Amino acid sequence: MTTRLLTDAILGIDIGGTKTAFGFVSLTGELLGFDKILTEASQPASVFFTRLHEAVCALQAKISIPIRLKGIGVGAPNANFFTGEMVNPPNLPWGIVSVTDILSASFGVPCLLTNDAKAAALGEHIFGAAKGVKNFIVLTIGTGLGSGIICNGELVYGHDGFAGEIGHTIYDPRGRECGCGRLGCLETYVSASGLKRTAFELLAHRRTTSLFQNQSFDLLTAKNIFEAAQQGDCIALETFDQTARILAAKLADTIAHVSPSHIFLCGGVAQAGELLFSPLRRYIEASLLTVFRGKVKLLPSALPAGQAAILGAAALFVSKGDLRSCSPGLNASSRLTTSELQPLSS
Amino acid sequence: MTTRLLTDAILGIDIGGTKTAFGFVSLTGELLGFDKILTEASQPASVFFTRLHEAVCALQAKISIPIRLKGIGVGAPNANFFTGEMVNPPNLPWGIVSVTDILSASFGVPCLLTNDAKAAALGEHIFGAAKGVKNFIVLTIGTGLGSGIICNGELVYGHDGFAGEIGHTIYDPRGRECGCGRLGCLETYVSASGLKRTAFELLAHRRTTSLFQNQSFDLLTAKNIFEAAQQGDCIALETFDQTARILAAKLADTIAHVSPSHIFLCGGVAQAGELLFSPLRRYIEASLLTVFRGKVKLLPSALPAGQAAILGAAALFVSKGDLRSCSPGLNASSRLTTSELQPLSS
Repeated sequence: MTTRLLTDAILGIDIGGTKTAFGFVSLTGELLGFDKILTEASQPASVFFTRLHEAVCALQAKISIPIRLKGIGVGAPNANFFTGEMVNPPNLPWGIVSVTDILSASFGVPCLLTNDAKAAALGEHIFGAAKGVKNFIVLTIGTGLGSGIICNGELVYGHDGFAGEIGHTIYDPRGRECGCGRLGCLETYVSASGLKRTAFELLAHRRTTSLFQNQSFDLLTAKNIFEAAQQGDCIALETFDQTARILAAKLADTIAHVSPSHIFLCGGVAQAGELLFSPLRRYIEASLLTVFRGKVKLLPSALPAGQAAILGAAALFVSKGDLRSCSPGLNASSRLTTSELQPLSS
Repeated sequence: MTTRLLTDAILGIDIGGTKTAFGFVSLTGELLGFDKILTEASQPASVFFTRLHEAVCALQAKISIPIRLKGIGVGAPNANFFTGEMVNPPNLPWGIVSVTDILSASFGVPCLLTNDAKAAALGEHIFGAAKGVKNFIVLTIGTGLGSGIICNGELVYGHDGFAGEIGHTIYDPRGRECGCGRLGCLETYVSASGLKRTAFELLAHRRTTSLFQNQSFDLLTAKNIFEAAQQGDCIALETFDQTARILAAKLADTIAHVSPSHIFLCGGVAQAGELLFSPLRRYIEASLLTVFRGKVKLLPSALPAGQAAILGAAALFVSKGDLRSCSPGLNASSRLTTSELQPLSS
């Protein structure tokens, strides 16, 4: 067998409540190969990590480029960068899991962990539209509302790793019930379920007919509202307008705190494009303190929607990991097992 | 004349709308001597800077310790760290003033400028109770509400130098008129004038008698309210309680953004001590997202009230200035004029 040139790569893993996506990412942000498995939250965490290891090895065997694995970056819900633990995530009944310990033992390379929204911010910073931008925010608007804040070129973790909870700033202290136990969190208005709640409120409030007025609360989705808005449905259009107005009001506070030059939106709801961006730009300008007006650029993420989470997780390692470390010569011809992949002594 | 040992010092200057305080600060935070002059905003800026230079030289001549001036740090309203300019401060009709250019030319040493609240945060970080603390906030509650945010051990300036405007986050979008032209800014509730507005609202709302119900709006001061509260006046006590409740509600948002381990309060209103701190601690805990509860320490500034602004301004230079520079051998026996103090070529 001839020696083949190895490509340095990071394994990026995005652990979700339903699915876990993973892929090998080159140091320049090229996704060399990716796949996903069902997370199967009802099984113990140990079963998940064994299945994940097998699936990663299977993917690695399929990739035509021989890889030298330098490290692992993981994005996960309720993840703490400082401890490497996932702490009681709402959709994964695994308690506290030492994700970085398990994965670095299993793959024999260093591993870093952060939450999914912070990973998205790092992905934008290292591989996306925020290269060289020193002060910006990434909002991930999907099932929930997450955020990653970059100040002075560094991700803001706060003293305990839990900074960036913009989704749990309060829009209305007498407002909607939030899963966190409080009332009126921004996430209850600006998220997939927030859109649905707003649409139902507007249906109750207006006399206008709507394309989804025969739809149940359970069955209505953010996608339905988006499609209705594209067809000119007044309730759907007003839902996006109101969502933009509420988000703008709270982003004015965020901007007053950290004065970013850019705000990037990603996640499912951000796919609504100008239906959301156009009113949002207008409302942000109207909401801002004078000194901040005309300065903040609102843009979609530049990372491909299907790859952003994996690229973001890999970016965590590229930005903070020790790239001198390497695995024991992974390449396409070897199928690796856990026992072969012990941490290097170097 | 024998050669005397020179003490390295920073000139700290706090430019205010009415008075300007200044002093020489050793690199370990000892205030070697200080004085103040009236700012006399009605005179041109050039007159002010000439008077300031004379007063600094006079102070320097009075100090028994011979000083080697390493640099100047300035705290001022509407100051921009990046440009070194004071930009249309509300109480100083001087337009845009290149403060750092004027002072470094005048004293022959480098000069840095930031706003007063950011200087307070740096003062706490370098000389006060936040030494070694990497994530904290300083709130200056006086005439207005200013703030300085430290994340990852660095002051947050934002992309344009204007971050940290917590006083202009919105408490109530249909609330009190703010000087900034918007409604319901936190500063209209939490500041000396905010206390007064709250006390007057409560007088109108309640049937309780109060020690200051025969006082006009013009004449009532935050100090009157403080003294009434000390005597058990119900309206005054409720004023502090309501102020604490409103500040706590917004600090919960601030904590969700940057997750500080400490919040320090300084400024005139913070001198109210436990009248403010006690309800504030309680309300902050009640307002926080679960993950932040029981973690954030609320403390008074450790810097002496009369010296904090000068120490803060000097801290700016200690933290960011080039301490290798020095003036042409300032010492107690020489009275310096502008012409003698040109920038060094080294």
